[in-house]
Amino acid sequence: MKFKPKILQIATKGPLIAILNKIDVQLLNLSALDRIKIKKKEKRKVVAIDIAYGKKEVSPGEIGLFLDVAEELNIKEDDEVEVSLESKPESLQYIKKKLDKKELSKIEIDKIIKDLLANKLTEIEATYFVAACYINKMSLDESAYLTEAIVKNSGRLKFNKKPIVDKHSIGGLAGNRTTPIIVSIVAAAGLTIPKTSTRSITSPSGTSDTMEVLAPVSHSKEKIMEIVKKTNACMVWGGTLDLASADDKLIQLEKPLSLDPEGFLLASILAKKSAVDSSHILIDIPIGREAKIESKKRAKDLAKKFITLGKKLNMKIKVIITDGSQPIGNGVGPALEAKDILLILQNRNGPEDLKKKAVYMAGLIFEMVGYKNGYKKALEILESGKAYKKMQEIIKEQGGNPNIQPENIKLGIYPYTFRSRTSGKISYISNKLITKLAKSAGAPNNKGAGVYLHKKLNTKINVNEPLFTIYAESKDKLTFALKENLNNVMKIS
Amino acid sequence: MKFKPKILQIATKGPLIAILNKIDVQLLNLSALDRIKIKKKEKRKVVAIDIAYGKKEVSPGEIGLFLDVAEELNIKEDDEVEVSLESKPESLQYIKKKLDKKELSKIEIDKIIKDLLANKLTEIEATYFVAACYINKMSLDESAYLTEAIVKNSGRLKFNKKPIVDKHSIGGLAGNRTTPIIVSIVAAAGLTIPKTSTRSITSPSGTSDTMEVLAPVSHSKEKIMEIVKKTNACMVWGGTLDLASADDKLIQLEKPLSLDPEGFLLASILAKKSAVDSSHILIDIPIGREAKIESKKRAKDLAKKFITLGKKLNMKIKVIITDGSQPIGNGVGPALEAKDILLILQNRNGPEDLKKKAVYMAGLIFEMVGYKNGYKKALEILESGKAYKKMQEIIKEQGGNPNIQPENIKLGIYPYTFRSRTSGKISYISNKLITKLAKSAGAPNNKGAGVYLHKKLNTKINVNEPLFTIYAESKDKLTFALKENLNNVMKIS
Repeated sequence: MKFKPKILQIATKGPLIAILNKIDVQLLNLSALDRIKIKKKEKRKVVAIDIAYGKKEVSPGEIGLFLDVAEELNIKEDDEVEVSLESKPESLQYIKKKLDKKELSKIEIDKIIKDLLANKLTEIEATYFVAACYINKMSLDESAYLTEAIVKNSGRLKFNKKPIVDKHSIGGLAGNRTTPIIVSIVAAAGLTIPKTSTRSITSPSGTSDTMEVLAPVSHSKEKIMEIVKKTNACMVWGGTLDLASADDKLIQLEKPLSLDPEGFLLASILAKKSAVDSSHILIDIPIGREAKIESKKRAKDLAKKFITLGKKLNMKIKVIITDGSQPIGNGVGPALEAKDILLILQNRNGPEDLKKKAVYMAGLIFEMVGYKNGYKKALEILESGKAYKKMQEIIKEQGGNPNIQPENIKLGIYPYTFRSRTSGKISYISNKLITKLAKSAGAPNNKGAGVYLHKKLNTKINVNEPLFTIYAESKDKLTFALKENLNNVMKIS
Repeated sequence: MKFKPKILQIATKGPLIAILNKIDVQLLNLSALDRIKIKKKEKRKVVAIDIAYGKKEVSPGEIGLFLDVAEELNIKEDDEVEVSLESKPESLQYIKKKLDKKELSKIEIDKIIKDLLANKLTEIEATYFVAACYINKMSLDESAYLTEAIVKNSGRLKFNKKPIVDKHSIGGLAGNRTTPIIVSIVAAAGLTIPKTSTRSITSPSGTSDTMEVLAPVSHSKEKIMEIVKKTNACMVWGGTLDLASADDKLIQLEKPLSLDPEGFLLASILAKKSAVDSSHILIDIPIGREAKIESKKRAKDLAKKFITLGKKLNMKIKVIITDGSQPIGNGVGPALEAKDILLILQNRNGPEDLKKKAVYMAGLIFEMVGYKNGYKKALEILESGKAYKKMQEIIKEQGGNPNIQPENIKLGIYPYTFRSRTSGKISYISNKLITKLAKSAGAPNNKGAGVYLHKKLNTKINVNEPLFTIYAESKDKLTFALKENLNNVMKIS
């Protein structure tokens, strides 16, 4: 049947949908979310249909198309398109199978991920997959298949080298920007560590956001390969590489109910490592009342699964469980974190907790690949200035100024310092509130925005001493941040 | 924060959504599908947000609004609206609880249904509810709460009378239009049977579509009460009454994976009966290879649950398991079915199987309310012409022509008769193909469209004898229907 396109000025970036009038839907024997194939000349696209009940939007004989579909098929409003029926994607059967508590095979999981990535599954259908894997827990085999499927159907970087090391911290802890320090130390020792990271969406900064204060992080695949070849390392945004994009889609569906099916969590992390060919991975699980993982028991269970799954995927994995009771480092937000990092690499007055944790983790990576006395080795590399030199090389290769100094990093010009109203000892720091505060002030979009902690847990404090400073790049955003309840950020007793 | 509305020319009729630019989303500390409250003067509305990644559609400072929301709040493009954060609906906790395999209370189920109806749940969130109830089966208590919640949050008809009888056939069998005959017989005997039905979306005709050939079926609540008062009965479309509209929303979510969580099926049927105050309900479960319920075991299990659930809801329920191996009656499609029905009521040459089944069911309803020899009584009422007279009354009260004759019912003027190519006996009739054929020909939208079966199962057939006739109202639709594989409609061996 032929239809007249009506182009709707919205792009979904998600499942491909076209809208038909109720009358046509009945005539074609369709139901909502059935599939049709739209054809214009040689181009064709399968989309799910939605039903328009009134004529106001889409009349009989018309087909409503979102921008994405119209652009992809190069359809204009005065064109005519041919519509034919398509069967539903095969992967729906497998989603149903998992809903029915049956284990999925490698091929079946691969097909689901392929269809998800190709936007062939509607939100409702993909949600059923998440729900099924949440209730009917994935086996470790299934998690391995999922990891492989995510990697196989996404971009990847291929290095013909071994070992390739990497690290990952289970998110949620403010600051905790160990990565740039670890990468500098480890690469200075000659190990290859191609670090790709996400930009933050829900936290005040991701490694990419922080690194971007020092150098560009958006590079082509070829450029990244070159940077790694020259410096043994990189610290880039993974977005251009399309690593694990299926994973991103699943995460969007988990958010509304804050679900985090364990099988997905495992696959999500390991897929990104596998995509850059990592052979040795150190995983950090911070535990704390306001961290993602709250109990030691859950952390230990997760650690065991990471290791088993690693074996299935041919990766050597070590897991450490660390203190997540407060932010790590003093700065929270891109510029503040970058400043902390440079100070540590330059062996100046950087935050001790961040330095110690980074050196500890770099040392463990050394031991994973067979070096002895890892901690000592890592500390030497840092204190000798070799790590700083490596960082300068990386900054230079990524197109930044290698001589940037902590003093030259611009912070938001609207600071506000919150001072203690009593004296005593800091007994609690709210990780969640600090995160919220930094984001309200504009982080990570405004690089200079964030929160600087002058004091950490168990420090003695006098009346009127500064506890933390909020930085914003505009007056409005500072005002917005100041609406939070500042009294609850730190408890003094 | 203040935003400038950008009104998008689409109405969703579903979950309420507004679109913000990524920059504003980060600034407000939001994630996709978080809730915001939109305020214009005293009017306010809570909506979920979606994220625009580019500036093409929704720029920072703008808020994209679908037609439904804009109209409800009377927002114009040059207005300014105030946006504030809202917490997620409470019902999400209960959906999560059910995902976590815990049983829900009456209050919790009621809240979910309320939010679903108020479009407060996004498609993803509501899908999680369906998935949870599918995998973690609802208890009969939960089904009872669901039924009550659907009834409580929808429109209803209140008759201060007892008994009020009703019948329901589990759908999926073509033809099978027993309702108008049963209603006529039962009401002629003085029983009250206010029959509300759906219009078909997925089948070639619903009771409303068929009845509409004889009389209008769309009436106000007051008018329906009046029709029932005068005739003891009605046969109207339930749509104007908004009975069980929560149920309709759940069904839309079940379709993509053809799920039919049993708890929902039970609640869906009984809620519509409870909404018209029914005290005695006869439920017909046809079983057959192409019927909705395929096995006797499943039918019996379902029957038991209907009865138990009926007790919880204070309804007397009787269930019969009937032959669903072929369509009931000869006509499939509104006009063809209406014709069959009139012929039977006029005691002329109507299809015997349909007549027998309707009389049998009417007889059972008589026995349920305490009459003896129900079948005999029902047959007498039919054959004496009293049932036909009652039907004429109902047609008249609903605004139709009570003297309409089967011969005057217009069938599609483009018929095509398919004849047998061999001789033998009809050994199989495909219910699904007939359904598809009738729909392709234009039913139920085109009243005259459908399929007429000249022969039924186990009939002897000669070469070139007519097997079935397709009726369409336009040449195009006939052509469309003829694309189906007509050879597979009936098997002759």
